[in-house]
Amino acid sequence: MTKVVLLGAGNLGFHFYRQFMQSKDINLIQWYNRSLKKLDFAKNKLAVTNQISQLKTADLYLICVSDDAIETVSENIQSEALIAHCAGGMHLNRLRGSSRRAVFYPLQSFTKERDLSFENLPFCIETSDPNDQPLLKNLAKSLGGDPYLFNSENRALIHMIAVFINNFGNHILHLVSELSKKHNIPFHFFNLLINETYQKAIDIGPENSQTGPAIRQDKKTIDKHLEMLKDQNLKNLYLNLTSSIQKNES
Amino acid sequence: MTKVVLLGAGNLGFHFYRQFMQSKDINLIQWYNRSLKKLDFAKNKLAVTNQISQLKTADLYLICVSDDAIETVSENIQSEALIAHCAGGMHLNRLRGSSRRAVFYPLQSFTKERDLSFENLPFCIETSDPNDQPLLKNLAKSLGGDPYLFNSENRALIHMIAVFINNFGNHILHLVSELSKKHNIPFHFFNLLINETYQKAIDIGPENSQTGPAIRQDKKTIDKHLEMLKDQNLKNLYLNLTSSIQKNES
Repeated sequence: MTKVVLLGAGNLGFHFYRQFMQSKDINLIQWYNRSLKKLDFAKNKLAVTNQISQLKTADLYLICVSDDAIETVSENIQSEALIAHCAGGMHLNRLRGSSRRAVFYPLQSFTKERDLSFENLPFCIETSDPNDQPLLKNLAKSLGGDPYLFNSENRALIHMIAVFINNFGNHILHLVSELSKKHNIPFHFFNLLINETYQKAIDIGPENSQTGPAIRQDKKTIDKHLEMLKDQNLKNLYLNLTSSIQKNES
Repeated sequence: MTKVVLLGAGNLGFHFYRQFMQSKDINLIQWYNRSLKKLDFAKNKLAVTNQISQLKTADLYLICVSDDAIETVSENIQSEALIAHCAGGMHLNRLRGSSRRAVFYPLQSFTKERDLSFENLPFCIETSDPNDQPLLKNLAKSLGGDPYLFNSENRALIHMIAVFINNFGNHILHLVSELSKKHNIPFHFFNLLINETYQKAIDIGPENSQTGPAIRQDKKTIDKHLEMLKDQNLKNLYLNLTSSIQKNES
């Protein structure tokens, strides 16, 4: 059994905690967080601490703190065991402390309140020492995920693509949900369209799914939409995305 | 049973054909299309024609041709029965021919090759004569959908929101799928992230789902991404969407 100390109790740390506690292959021996309060609900189930100096001896220190805190937290870990951070956009070299360094990045958007499975989830793995790959590959597999090796450059690209998909995709939905509510149209109206949009892109590829006024050069409809958009920000986005479709889609 | 003549054999016309043929409440008596070839597969199951002058007598002429052809097709229908077009962005008044005019717009993105259910689908209905509402409401219900009354202005807004969700959402996926493939990262890697992004927005609302470098003012990551983006178009979109998040998300 791999002995793991988990550091951080944000969205990802919380999901790892839940999965590790259920796993037969992983022995989660301690949970660290800057504030003990967040760990209160778990203190009867495993050791918790807010002191990095009191970390137990483990096979892996898994760091799920915010990007900015990774350097400081890692340099205070007094161990020569493997330490790994979980941040898609951070270079392996940002880790301090142990000389055995790694990244263990699950390609997903985690929210505490939502049940999320790790089943078939891609885990992007990088290690400073190739001998440490099996430990992390097995960790990913024992969570039901699929391990893949990526260097920090490719992982940064994957992380940036995730920003487009998740952050920008959600933001567009947010902007139009505001517009919709402003006109007393309940946003759940669009649920089936949202589902079909993304299921279609997954099933037949976004390159085979483009429709609408931009790609068919329907200037009349485009002009009408621009006239309807009173908000300058929405108008700019509409123009940019329309011109991007006309430049890039064939 | 409502006697229906269907006009047009594009994506939507095709889906209506399939649903109507299965329905006990709808008697699809004829299918018109400019080119007979597209109707060839159906000619043993119902009357087909490419001559508007030869349309049969029906309760409803349902027009699913392209936006630009709606006016011409409708003015050639010699009947005082109800005629309806299915275009989200077109005003009711664009119909000619019969004085009983209507719109019957299903809020979905249809593709011939994909099985799509009308179950719980919102249908935006508008009629020039309120007496014609029941016929179209019942038509929507008999397809499993939910009828709603909207005037042309609100329907145009719904259609524009659908453009943001479907056309722009798909285009962003297309742009990053190209980037992904260029770096030999298979795009199916992102399937679970795509699913979770949109399922989360549906479940807890996009206003509660925003994460990422833009909203947390993480200038370091944003600068890194902008440096990674060599394509000027992608860079512009990244900048616009990031600044829109920073302006609009709290």
